[in-house]
Amino acid sequence: MGKVKFSVTMSLDGYVAGPNPRFEEPLGDGGEGLHEWMFQTAGWKREHGGGEEGATGRDDEIVRESYENTGAYVMGRQMFGGGEGDWGDESWKGWWGDDPPYHVPVFVLTHHPREPVPMEGGTTFHFVTDGIESALEQARAAAGDGDVQIAGGADVIQQYLRAGVVDEFQVSVAPKFLGGGVRLFDGLGNDEIKLQVVRAVESPLATHVRYRVF
Amino acid sequence: MGKVKFSVTMSLDGYVAGPNPRFEEPLGDGGEGLHEWMFQTAGWKREHGGGEEGATGRDDEIVRESYENTGAYVMGRQMFGGGEGDWGDESWKGWWGDDPPYHVPVFVLTHHPREPVPMEGGTTFHFVTDGIESALEQARAAAGDGDVQIAGGADVIQQYLRAGVVDEFQVSVAPKFLGGGVRLFDGLGNDEIKLQVVRAVESPLATHVRYRVF
Repeated sequence: MGKVKFSVTMSLDGYVAGPNPRFEEPLGDGGEGLHEWMFQTAGWKREHGGGEEGATGRDDEIVRESYENTGAYVMGRQMFGGGEGDWGDESWKGWWGDDPPYHVPVFVLTHHPREPVPMEGGTTFHFVTDGIESALEQARAAAGDGDVQIAGGADVIQQYLRAGVVDEFQVSVAPKFLGGGVRLFDGLGNDEIKLQVVRAVESPLATHVRYRVF
Repeated sequence: MGKVKFSVTMSLDGYVAGPNPRFEEPLGDGGEGLHEWMFQTAGWKREHGGGEEGATGRDDEIVRESYENTGAYVMGRQMFGGGEGDWGDESWKGWWGDDPPYHVPVFVLTHHPREPVPMEGGTTFHFVTDGIESALEQARAAAGDGDVQIAGGADVIQQYLRAGVVDEFQVSVAPKFLGGGVRLFDGLGNDEIKLQVVRAVESPLATHVRYRVF
């Protein structure tokens, strides 16, 4: 059985998204800027149709690693594609375009039942209405020997951390302050979750630290 | 003229002190545990009367660096020694013992005028009642060519960051969640403070990242 993991970028003041999230700017003011380290890499550009001209240094290795060995994803409904209002329209297939960067089954946590939505490139969105344990169980089954990646958002990551099922995670700290928005780690009680630093990788645009939960 | 800098340890969820700070536990629940990386080093033990048997690896280098070239400190009154109530008693000389680990002038921000308090080992506490600019000016004058270190707490660090006078700082991220307490970086507006990663040093007990403000 593979690992349960996540990989996420946060600001130095702990935010994964800035203030004022909205349809055109789902990561809020300054939120997209956190991911500069990623957007400039060859791995990201190849995945998102930008060719191979990107940077190939340490940040690129981190991006490539994050795709490796992932057999399924779990994500919250907002990460799939916005608020409850969008769900009346069955033609809405989320933020991620016709060929989402997942290429494996993606289990979306929601209260609204919906038929699976197959996309180009191997991604299929499955909608799970009976909770995080069920979503993880389905994702594990779909992943086989591969890992399950918790894609986000912050609330979903916190729920899985509290449930004690995360094996490993990576935080990429961008050298920026957002001053408000959504905190990655909020309300996680003292001493309930024990962590160990596995490694730190430094680049000018982010510090990537991997932790093991034990 | 030297630099204005600070060096501080925070939890992965961004706290420098845990919940329930009190006289016997000024860093709150779990707060002291953040500094494990420091307590085990030779540099810290030598400074705090524990001999030279401590660890001499990367964490130790970080501790030694933090003492180097510092000509004066600025700190808040709580970091000197607790709340307003303690200030009526002129015999109270703070948390730091007879021979505080500073060995240079320390400027304490307060609303209560008080004569300077000379301690053993070169530390003298000066009490500044006319604001952060005045404290920095006095500290710069005392430091000469040396650096001025903002010792904390978090609110004092935030005030100097907002004032735009900090040149460089180091954050040591301990692999722990505190779940509550005092956040190091709070209310620092998006895009007002530009940062650059200078270097990251990894150890099992902390990730030390140095930033330049530009």
